[in-house]
Amino acid sequence: MQKVDLILSGGTVVTMNSSFDVIHDGAVAIHGAQIVAIGESAEILAQYEADEHVSCQGQYILPGLVNAHTHVPMTLLRGLADDLRLDVWLMGYMMPTEREFVSPEFCRLGTRLACAELIRSGVTAFADMYYFEADIAAATAEAGLRGVLGQTILKFPSPDAETYEDSLAYARRFIEEWRGHPLITPAVAPHAPYSSTEELMQKSAELAREFDVPVLIHIAESKQEVEDNLNLYDMTVVPWVESVGLLKAKVLAAHCVHINTAEMHTLHNHNTTVAHCPTSNLKLASGIAPVQQMLEHDLVVGIGTDGPASNNVLDMFQEIKLAAILAKTAANDPTALPAKQALLMATRQGADALYLGDKTGSLEAGKLADVIVMDAQGVHNSPHFRRDNEAIYSEIVYAGKSTDVAHVMCNGKWLMRDRQVLTVDEAAVKREASEYARRVDVFLAAREGDILSKLLAIGGIERTESFEVQTKAVLRDETAVEKLLKHRDVQVLKLNRYRQYDTYFLFDDPEKGRVRYREDDTIDEKGLVASVRSRLTFTMPTKEKEFDSTVLLSHSRFIADADRPLRFYREYFQPTTERELQKDRRRWHIHYQGVLFYINVDRILRPELADTFIEIKTRTWSAQDADNKAQRIQEMLSILGVKSEDIIVADYLEMEGLPG
Amino acid sequence: MQKVDLILSGGTVVTMNSSFDVIHDGAVAIHGAQIVAIGESAEILAQYEADEHVSCQGQYILPGLVNAHTHVPMTLLRGLADDLRLDVWLMGYMMPTEREFVSPEFCRLGTRLACAELIRSGVTAFADMYYFEADIAAATAEAGLRGVLGQTILKFPSPDAETYEDSLAYARRFIEEWRGHPLITPAVAPHAPYSSTEELMQKSAELAREFDVPVLIHIAESKQEVEDNLNLYDMTVVPWVESVGLLKAKVLAAHCVHINTAEMHTLHNHNTTVAHCPTSNLKLASGIAPVQQMLEHDLVVGIGTDGPASNNVLDMFQEIKLAAILAKTAANDPTALPAKQALLMATRQGADALYLGDKTGSLEAGKLADVIVMDAQGVHNSPHFRRDNEAIYSEIVYAGKSTDVAHVMCNGKWLMRDRQVLTVDEAAVKREASEYARRVDVFLAAREGDILSKLLAIGGIERTESFEVQTKAVLRDETAVEKLLKHRDVQVLKLNRYRQYDTYFLFDDPEKGRVRYREDDTIDEKGLVASVRSRLTFTMPTKEKEFDSTVLLSHSRFIADADRPLRFYREYFQPTTERELQKDRRRWHIHYQGVLFYINVDRILRPELADTFIEIKTRTWSAQDADNKAQRIQEMLSILGVKSEDIIVADYLEMEGLPG
Repeated sequence: MQKVDLILSGGTVVTMNSSFDVIHDGAVAIHGAQIVAIGESAEILAQYEADEHVSCQGQYILPGLVNAHTHVPMTLLRGLADDLRLDVWLMGYMMPTEREFVSPEFCRLGTRLACAELIRSGVTAFADMYYFEADIAAATAEAGLRGVLGQTILKFPSPDAETYEDSLAYARRFIEEWRGHPLITPAVAPHAPYSSTEELMQKSAELAREFDVPVLIHIAESKQEVEDNLNLYDMTVVPWVESVGLLKAKVLAAHCVHINTAEMHTLHNHNTTVAHCPTSNLKLASGIAPVQQMLEHDLVVGIGTDGPASNNVLDMFQEIKLAAILAKTAANDPTALPAKQALLMATRQGADALYLGDKTGSLEAGKLADVIVMDAQGVHNSPHFRRDNEAIYSEIVYAGKSTDVAHVMCNGKWLMRDRQVLTVDEAAVKREASEYARRVDVFLAAREGDILSKLLAIGGIERTESFEVQTKAVLRDETAVEKLLKHRDVQVLKLNRYRQYDTYFLFDDPEKGRVRYREDDTIDEKGLVASVRSRLTFTMPTKEKEFDSTVLLSHSRFIADADRPLRFYREYFQPTTERELQKDRRRWHIHYQGVLFYINVDRILRPELADTFIEIKTRTWSAQDADNKAQRIQEMLSILGVKSEDIIVADYLEMEGLPG
Repeated sequence: MQKVDLILSGGTVVTMNSSFDVIHDGAVAIHGAQIVAIGESAEILAQYEADEHVSCQGQYILPGLVNAHTHVPMTLLRGLADDLRLDVWLMGYMMPTEREFVSPEFCRLGTRLACAELIRSGVTAFADMYYFEADIAAATAEAGLRGVLGQTILKFPSPDAETYEDSLAYARRFIEEWRGHPLITPAVAPHAPYSSTEELMQKSAELAREFDVPVLIHIAESKQEVEDNLNLYDMTVVPWVESVGLLKAKVLAAHCVHINTAEMHTLHNHNTTVAHCPTSNLKLASGIAPVQQMLEHDLVVGIGTDGPASNNVLDMFQEIKLAAILAKTAANDPTALPAKQALLMATRQGADALYLGDKTGSLEAGKLADVIVMDAQGVHNSPHFRRDNEAIYSEIVYAGKSTDVAHVMCNGKWLMRDRQVLTVDEAAVKREASEYARRVDVFLAAREGDILSKLLAIGGIERTESFEVQTKAVLRDETAVEKLLKHRDVQVLKLNRYRQYDTYFLFDDPEKGRVRYREDDTIDEKGLVASVRSRLTFTMPTKEKEFDSTVLLSHSRFIADADRPLRFYREYFQPTTERELQKDRRRWHIHYQGVLFYINVDRILRPELADTFIEIKTRTWSAQDADNKAQRIQEMLSILGVKSEDIIVADYLEMEGLPG
């Protein structure tokens, strides 16, 4: 008799191994973190002696489920804002709330809450993308779950980093700290192509390859994303991420709702895996992913719940069933994605998608003991037909519920017994989560009717690059401009002339930010108005940075086309005060040393100012790039011969001489 | 202090009344079968004195859910056969199993199992369509649930009736027996347009109107159904059911997946209500119903699980969530069908769809006490935001689970307390259901590889009319045929001439039925073969009936185009014996007194027979119509002057003189 720690016996063992063995009255012998043997109960009990015996009569013994895509700390934002337009949801609720609340403490608490929920629904491994991923790792390891945890990298400022360079540095430290952990696989998570730059993608892929860790990313989630990518790069999303070298890493691509068969070939050629998230895709009106086709193209596809802000639960049983039934209507074929295949995607194939296929995903001797036991005898899952072995997959997928899960083990350690979660203090977590929710309620209630919300409510808003790098000076000598434009490092691309009519809406509380309504009249060579465009710009009170008191950095601007009359906006925003500014602007688009800059030469017509002003501006997503560009602006200032006393560190509105 | 039976207090009361009142720390006072008052706990407790108090701290108090479409006894067939082609599923598994097993006892047991499941998931009212509906009514009333129960009427023979006339008679008795019951509303359920005749639809509507009970029916479930309807009647489904007068009744139409906006107007004009079944529609690859459009057209739409053979659970929480999220992707709009509206469809609007809106569907003083209490504090449903009242619907719809339901009351009577079902002996029901499943397994295993299954496996099979009404006689005088064709009551529509090559596959066990492979060569005027068609006909051993020993009725024929060579079918079916028959057939299509008949004049060429034979044939779905037509055939026999001793009550294969 061989000695082992534990024997589960008397249940129906659904191995999900490559021959899909199902053993009625079967048993699993476990020692340490590993599965030692699987077979008929009589056979295992004859061969092994165990310290602990668990009878699984009337139950299924299954590999732990794999949730291939989620954002665990967002449990704390579950149900915060649903059934909204995507821009309102994201910019009106998610982004401001995350900016205000997401902290290491928030991420640990949200992860604990999520782990309790994941354990209760039979999940033993998941792939996550969020902020402060080292804290998520700590809380996940404490709860005893297996995680492939991707540190999110964005071109925008994020709750854990002002710049993507900071995020990359964080990711590197995170990987160094956690690699080799028995439960945690650190990973790099460039958020999505549309929220990345080419450089961000390349650096992410390089970092992942350096440590041989996975890259997690959202790919082709919405039709809009594909259209925007086409407009920007003249390519659909997959060819673009391939062209920037991302697919050289071990990529797990979430969603892939809008990819074509050529893109499936590309993903397959690079061994990229996919996380299919049917609930999230339906709920956000993203569409229906072509899962059946992906499987026909031999792609490795797992199933994910996505985050609780777009689902709103982490229930893999809901997800597996929806994946199976949705694929049938999508393929117009009731035989598409049968129950067995759907369960495979949530177990062995899901583990493959997470690059954990050698460790988990099926019940096989030698694999780690990630095992769940679920009741098979609920009234909702009776009776059972045993004519053929396929019926058991129907029972689990079409009739099984997460609440049927009774015991959960991960890496040989019990996480739940008889529906009692052992590794998370659920009552404490729920209490703390409640306190967060109360604070979020107060925060959001206080800004009900705030400027950004109001702007969002009327639609069409867009967030601009994080960094506006600019300088402004009194232009004493107009010929200096000629000198700059003719400089050997400068190439003039375009000159426009505008008459700009700005109305600023200001509010009593400067924390509210301010709104500028601008009418831009383009003036042609004859001095006539050639075209008119109106735009709103919302600027939030932001952190700013100066370089040598000459160049200014600013953050967090939102712009929107203004297709309604000024009177509408005035009544809508109800500013405390209003200021007007009218100017004549000549605007050159130039390349300086191959980099795009704008040169504005302005005369302020109302209130009338005697001086002429020059501005040099550019934008970027990258902090490092902002530094480079600030350096170049200083070079141009010296070509212009601008004296330091002529530099103005204020915008026109704040300049002396303008009415208060 | 007013005396009442029961007060539920301290919970969040989600009334679903017309102003969508939500009362935090609310209470419901119940007396007898009725809700007496609803308000804040303090207020209700100050005003009413109760025998029983239930504290609902941390729970939602909701109206019982309404399942707008199901087939409850099919719980006993749950998971029997999934992920199959529709014809294989229906004709290969469902129909033969139902024919063999469905009985009053089966229906009572299946209903008890379903009621336990429905109670556990918070349903207090449902609409059902099945056989032996009086037994379903008895079991439903015993379980204490509210049911709108439709006796199914089909043009095919069904488990509870050989003919639809029998079903109509059953339905009449059922209505007379059960109308006025406090829980049960009897109804008439013509199965679907494609399984009905015009007369069946009319009679069903008339019966329903006579007793002012609802009509339950499946409408436009699949694209194929719409196409077939167009081919048959030159109309889509809704205009056709309108044209036959069905919509004059109070109709609850299930599915409506493939209806256009004109059809929505028609349904709205007739106050027809709709049951939306998203899981079933996806699982059977039927498509996605245009729910958002239906709601915009002010249709009353409830939500249904459909039967457990196409879902496979009766879980309204799954269904409500899927309805809400699927509508968003269907409408390409994440704001479509918000949580509140989805919950409305499963409560007050669902009750309206069942024509029970005055009794149930919302928590209001004066309505019947159909109330559920569900836990709001699971880890999967934490935390809660209380900034606005809409959030509560998100919590219930997107995060709520059927297993959150703790207590269920219907008509003022407790059906479940603390997750203990009080009105169904679950253990006994599961045990008995298990025994049925074992018998079904044995039955299906015994017929693995049976003829019909094999025929189904190669596809394209079709079931013909139930009744073949025919006679056959030796034709002594060919001029008699001329006489019949020239008779004033006869109009000749068409004459064809065939050379028919029949091969019969016979099996040792006559219970297996037999297969005929027929090659039909059409012979033109010059005696040349103009076209060739091959068909398979499968005839099951059936009940037969004779009229005056002259006219024969037969049942249950299936036909399919035979697009493979005879050799294939021989090897595929492996008959015990084979017989050949070759004949020359002249076939007239005639109207006799305006009714279609076929006159065959046959010479048997192989094995060669001296006599010439005449056959008169017709088909129908209706038993009464079969009697009428048999009468007319006898009239034609007398015009032909056929003597009774020349009548042959056998088919050619069984006639003396043919090889054994």
